[in-house]
Amino acid sequence: MTTNQRDIRSVVIGIDIGGTNTKFGLVDKEGNCLAEASMPTHAEQEINQYLPRLYENIDILRNQMTVPVDIKGIGIGVPNGNYYTGTVDDAANINWGKMVPLAYLVQEHYKIPAFITNDANAAAIGEMLFGVAQGMKNFIIITLGTGLGSGLVANGQLIYGHDGFAGELGHVIVDPNGRFHGNSNQGVLEAYVSATGIKRTAFELMATMIEPSPLRDIAYNQMNASMITDAALKGDAIGIAAFEYTGKLLGMKLADAVAHTSPEAIVLFGGLTKAGKYLLEPTRKYMESFLFPIYRNKVKLLLSGLEGKNAAVLGASALIWSELEKKGEVK
Amino acid sequence: MTTNQRDIRSVVIGIDIGGTNTKFGLVDKEGNCLAEASMPTHAEQEINQYLPRLYENIDILRNQMTVPVDIKGIGIGVPNGNYYTGTVDDAANINWGKMVPLAYLVQEHYKIPAFITNDANAAAIGEMLFGVAQGMKNFIIITLGTGLGSGLVANGQLIYGHDGFAGELGHVIVDPNGRFHGNSNQGVLEAYVSATGIKRTAFELMATMIEPSPLRDIAYNQMNASMITDAALKGDAIGIAAFEYTGKLLGMKLADAVAHTSPEAIVLFGGLTKAGKYLLEPTRKYMESFLFPIYRNKVKLLLSGLEGKNAAVLGASALIWSELEKKGEVK
Repeated sequence: MTTNQRDIRSVVIGIDIGGTNTKFGLVDKEGNCLAEASMPTHAEQEINQYLPRLYENIDILRNQMTVPVDIKGIGIGVPNGNYYTGTVDDAANINWGKMVPLAYLVQEHYKIPAFITNDANAAAIGEMLFGVAQGMKNFIIITLGTGLGSGLVANGQLIYGHDGFAGELGHVIVDPNGRFHGNSNQGVLEAYVSATGIKRTAFELMATMIEPSPLRDIAYNQMNASMITDAALKGDAIGIAAFEYTGKLLGMKLADAVAHTSPEAIVLFGGLTKAGKYLLEPTRKYMESFLFPIYRNKVKLLLSGLEGKNAAVLGASALIWSELEKKGEVK
Repeated sequence: MTTNQRDIRSVVIGIDIGGTNTKFGLVDKEGNCLAEASMPTHAEQEINQYLPRLYENIDILRNQMTVPVDIKGIGIGVPNGNYYTGTVDDAANINWGKMVPLAYLVQEHYKIPAFITNDANAAAIGEMLFGVAQGMKNFIIITLGTGLGSGLVANGQLIYGHDGFAGELGHVIVDPNGRFHGNSNQGVLEAYVSATGIKRTAFELMATMIEPSPLRDIAYNQMNASMITDAALKGDAIGIAAFEYTGKLLGMKLADAVAHTSPEAIVLFGGLTKAGKYLLEPTRKYMESFLFPIYRNKVKLLLSGLEGKNAAVLGASALIWSELEKKGEVK
């Protein structure tokens, strides 16, 4: 078998770095993930222990490829990843320390362009290139994981802000006298609307409501958001009320977000969306009620088009594909 | 005296349409207003009565010019003006009705490009081209008049949103159980932070505080924001407390705005800024306290660079200059 120029597929490497696992894959321009693998992040390691392991695992993946590929660039989604500076500064739950020049290090190693951003921004670009936001110039993505992340797109471009840190909707204020929340402010959205937030809500509701519930047999440290989702899906009153309250606060702050950028759609992504209508219906209802009238019945509330489809790796790939496109290096 | 090509100055017409007065002027590319005039809007008139008067008054102004000018385009700031559609839909306090194709009508009359937007967006472009935001790619302007308007710039472009209505920060929710407010929602920012909002605050404070104040001799319907500003500047306890409360709520919602677009600066414009430090200091203090830590001590809080300098006309002129620049019709 001979290989000619036409058989070589142009791909990028998409890398998603989380506190527990690092996922990576080879993705073509249409968003097809040709190969994917993962490795433990070992968050306690330093960056100079982490990177050689990453390179080695990527080499293994490349060597397993049965079609010839030309790797055009590398996109990385990482907590606190700064698009402008290419640095990672005190990534949550990862022991790399301050101002690690991740984009530079990876670019030097592979001698091809490398860009980084945080995971929610990568997800936004992923939805725009490969997901439900294809063709949209103005939309917002909300990622509901352990915390609440967000990415805002306006005029067809991701909003990075002057410092690369735009789009932290997990840290808008719901109630200045509300819940305490790690190293953020009291009463921020993430303290209510996230996997950890809904757990706190469920415990509040067990105190105020009187209905029996299987959730009452689970201790705080043993409970997680999946259990509340399961309870809601089985019709449990406390589970449903927890999602109603979550949707109310999310809807109120999404109405605020609409007054900022007037998006065509808001895309919800992540674990809590598994509750389906129990999350979507209150979110939509309260968002509409809090919207300034000129915005009502115009903003689509959508579920991610990438969920379950190597979403994080696709997002990181989309970041670098969009950069290569800007530079005119691909059409 | 002969006129050659070099003596002809390129200008645009900037028009600011308010409920009471319409101001217009001829403005060059450096933001010099070569001539300016105004006429009563007569808001009770229909558009086909209004426009002939406007054209006539603009002709008078042109004929008064002693230097030859070449008019390149027309920019208009008008309540509810939609940049995308060129239409004005139910402008507040103006009796034009629904979906008036203002940009089209003016463009047909003069046979040169005409663009419209709302007054706060025009102010944002004005600050970017001629004011304190020159060279900034990411900033927000807040206009404090009878209501609260705003314009958001990200990646060097005004955010119009998918429908042209982005940037209505007057209608974000401060307190869902708060003050009623015309045809907006209960507890929106504008009900607190605006000329009408601070008046309501002063009356609340006269009820809760016990300090004597000259404001206690003025009836609700006779009071205006200037009186509260004057009182604060003279050290009146209620006047100062009214600005403190106004700055607290403004600061809290500006912290939310920063979490959306991470601007380099927030520019304050309009009547309430005459209170100087009594507005700026609490706004800055509370904004900083409500900011997510990564944003602290980075966002400049500035006063408009256009205040008193035909600001509204300059803003409308900046709109059309920026459009002509996009089209490559001027350098």
